[in-house]
Amino acid sequence: MAAQVERRLADFLSGVRGPVAPPDRLAAAMRYAALGGGKRLRPFLLIESAALFGVKLENALDAATALECIHAYSLVHDDLPGMDDDAMRRGRETVHIAYDEGTAILVGDGLLTLAFEILATPETHSDPAVRGELTLGLARAAGWAGMAGGQSLDLEAEGKRLRADEVRHLQALKTGVLIQYACIAGSILGQAPVRERSALEAYGRLLGQAFQLADDLLDVTGDEAKLGKRTGKDGDAGKATLVSLLGLEHAKTELLRLEAETIDALEVFGDRANILRETARFVSRREH
Amino acid sequence: MAAQVERRLADFLSGVRGPVAPPDRLAAAMRYAALGGGKRLRPFLLIESAALFGVKLENALDAATALECIHAYSLVHDDLPGMDDDAMRRGRETVHIAYDEGTAILVGDGLLTLAFEILATPETHSDPAVRGELTLGLARAAGWAGMAGGQSLDLEAEGKRLRADEVRHLQALKTGVLIQYACIAGSILGQAPVRERSALEAYGRLLGQAFQLADDLLDVTGDEAKLGKRTGKDGDAGKATLVSLLGLEHAKTELLRLEAETIDALEVFGDRANILRETARFVSRREH
Repeated sequence: MAAQVERRLADFLSGVRGPVAPPDRLAAAMRYAALGGGKRLRPFLLIESAALFGVKLENALDAATALECIHAYSLVHDDLPGMDDDAMRRGRETVHIAYDEGTAILVGDGLLTLAFEILATPETHSDPAVRGELTLGLARAAGWAGMAGGQSLDLEAEGKRLRADEVRHLQALKTGVLIQYACIAGSILGQAPVRERSALEAYGRLLGQAFQLADDLLDVTGDEAKLGKRTGKDGDAGKATLVSLLGLEHAKTELLRLEAETIDALEVFGDRANILRETARFVSRREH
Repeated sequence: MAAQVERRLADFLSGVRGPVAPPDRLAAAMRYAALGGGKRLRPFLLIESAALFGVKLENALDAATALECIHAYSLVHDDLPGMDDDAMRRGRETVHIAYDEGTAILVGDGLLTLAFEILATPETHSDPAVRGELTLGLARAAGWAGMAGGQSLDLEAEGKRLRADEVRHLQALKTGVLIQYACIAGSILGQAPVRERSALEAYGRLLGQAFQLADDLLDVTGDEAKLGKRTGKDGDAGKATLVSLLGLEHAKTELLRLEAETIDALEVFGDRANILRETARFVSRREH
């Protein structure tokens, strides 16, 4: 499935779909940022959540691609010198190193805007009300009260000693809401009944927490070669994580508890949700 | 009308409309960026274009506010050190000076995303197809093949000698398409017939050209106190403008010709479009 997301992203980023061709250099930098790497976790979650309601892969692929554009934009902007100032990402130079800082800002802006262009395109879903719901949900998940807000809290947190509840809130915004949106978007595409939407909302929220906790653990215990990025970053930056606040063993126990709760949230779907259950196990136990 | 746009912007930026409150510091920085200044030209054009088709101010105000969010975001990102590196805007410190660089990046991202949140909200228009058309048009106008693409061409142009046609293309993307979108959005809200949509498209395109040429002339001949920003910037940065390429007198003549053509494009509307005609005169003859 990652290959199909990659192909669709490459197709959108070829620049031939819109009515006007984008400038070559910006388009190349956007392809550099978005293609050739990444776990494609969010598109996978969207596609598998939609599949619970009989939505075929090809009918979820455009919304999934839009979501991945948002994720890719956030990485490019987070890596900028004015933010986390990272030179490497997925084993390659970050965009502002490979190109320049101004281009990296525009690559992020371009990918963010492209996500909404894709969601508003009639090919993404025949019903404009569904497209509108997808758009509203994505804007809220990605915006100032979502992912961008979380990144802002992260900037403010530098050099401060956050409590565990503050770290949880920061991480819920910074990474949680977009992972949760992936699952909610699947239920929007599937025009799912309320009860099943709520179940996916809970699953997405818990999965986002597990994902972040696993990430924080990998930053302490992980292998740089497998991860394709520096480890120990949070400690070096003086950033509080749940691992530093709870201790390594307690954090590992909490991750196991989250994994179980995430799987429990899918009960309403019975065996239909086995792939999402497997995903919860993968997210908690991944090594990269 | 600028006061009403300001109030609506302030209302959206109060952070109490969405389901989740945004972080205080980011919200304050977004208000700093978007409120208390600006000509509000784009909202004005949207509202007056919609009014041609009987759309009331209050029914065009949300779309106009979304458009102004996009304009405000573009100024914040353009002012960043990695882009134009400007310390002053509208007589005040730019966002990365008043706050910090990371916050300025997030302010831009937040305003860009908020624009799409507003357009996707049912209150903006009762018909989801209309909201979708507004969203698609804005994403195309603001994105990699529009405004962001123009900014990228501008970065590439530094130190190069562009021809007049290249400058025109750069400026059409960088400032033209968003001004044109304001007029097109009015016709979308008004669900206007094709012939009148085309007339507004032409008007918007020509007005965008006149606006940019007037801006370039003001950079050479304008008064810093009235403008609230440095003049002579383009010359200092070695940027080619139509004024430097055509010469001052030729550029002034071209602006008069554009003003006349812009007004001619409104012929189909008769006297209904007198305010838009007046706007064309104002844009060409403004002193700030």
